[in-house]
Amino acid sequence: MKIRQKQNAVILFSSGLDSTTALYYALSKGYKCYCLIFDYGQRHKREIKSAQKIAKLVKADFTVIKLSLPWSKDVLTNKNKKVPTHKVIKDIIPATYVPGRNTLFLSYGLSYAESINARSIFIGANALDYSGYPDCRPEFIKAYNGLLKSLGLKITVQAPLVNMTKAQIIKLGGKLKVPYQYTWSCYNGLKKPCGTCDSCKLRAKGFKEAELNDPAI
Amino acid sequence: MKIRQKQNAVILFSSGLDSTTALYYALSKGYKCYCLIFDYGQRHKREIKSAQKIAKLVKADFTVIKLSLPWSKDVLTNKNKKVPTHKVIKDIIPATYVPGRNTLFLSYGLSYAESINARSIFIGANALDYSGYPDCRPEFIKAYNGLLKSLGLKITVQAPLVNMTKAQIIKLGGKLKVPYQYTWSCYNGLKKPCGTCDSCKLRAKGFKEAELNDPAI
Repeated sequence: MKIRQKQNAVILFSSGLDSTTALYYALSKGYKCYCLIFDYGQRHKREIKSAQKIAKLVKADFTVIKLSLPWSKDVLTNKNKKVPTHKVIKDIIPATYVPGRNTLFLSYGLSYAESINARSIFIGANALDYSGYPDCRPEFIKAYNGLLKSLGLKITVQAPLVNMTKAQIIKLGGKLKVPYQYTWSCYNGLKKPCGTCDSCKLRAKGFKEAELNDPAI
Repeated sequence: MKIRQKQNAVILFSSGLDSTTALYYALSKGYKCYCLIFDYGQRHKREIKSAQKIAKLVKADFTVIKLSLPWSKDVLTNKNKKVPTHKVIKDIIPATYVPGRNTLFLSYGLSYAESINARSIFIGANALDYSGYPDCRPEFIKAYNGLLKSLGLKITVQAPLVNMTKAQIIKLGGKLKVPYQYTWSCYNGLKKPCGTCDSCKLRAKGFKEAELNDPAI
């Protein structure tokens, strides 16, 4: 069901497969979208450029937030460490986990949503074909909504992909005409996706299971 | 009861009366304290210097985090607006409320705590003699602890002052030898506290009720 009057929504946006699908999902529901893009010192900084490109394409508003986490020892924000290429293993928190990342992203989203009277914050989190990050799980989204409620706010976190497989997300994206050729998932910020990191592997698995070719490679 | 082995704790620290008391409280319990000080464009930026001074005094570690909230329309981060001098009114969210501020502070605290294996994040929030900010109330602290639990973390937010009056906080601070002369509460970042903003008024009320003189003025 489309909403009648355009309501504002904040989109936590990284240009990855999931958050781009979440953006297109929100657009399809008639929301006026305000994208929040984070520069947190990630090695795959080029996702910021991809995110800006996609936001411009759909004429969505976007803001880049610089976020400093000087204590983080993860491999995503420490360029002298190597992104592991081992197999995707569930139930173990991987080396690419950035402590508190989605909690921080949602908290910026909350601050922004309060300021522009948005009632929804969209996040592309999903917890089936995922890296095992604890801040992507349904119970986390539920608890964050509890936090918003405790503040007396009528804002909710929407995670429309949370229970979908990667293949289901890609199929939904196909219907929504998501330009997957512009999306960026790879943890290594090279010219082309590395094909060996967790994120590349999950993406490849998704396209394979959806029986589609990835237009980005 | 003092803890046996020094455990790490993150302290959300602004050099205000409350957070300085919370810092001294954590120190009295034997924690090794890591102060997080936020530069969020507040007009009373001089609190950052006061916070650094106090942290050095107690030999606590400290980190200043620059936090950008470009959308905020509050009077604390917009220097062309005037801090209101009207009377303290409860149950109305005042113009000095920065959307999402404590949620963001706690989320940085969570990220930091995860990285240094701290099990406690101390916040000086209190909800009796306060400005009516929704992110200072016990239900908010409780919900944030629910969020931490949903992430599978053994970290908790400690808000030891949450149910105390300002006078009770000052009396506790007296016992803990808090150097109130170095603390900074005023929302206006002038040379001396203005005496007319909400924060100055609440502080004055507290010292009056505690039958003590404020050594900072």
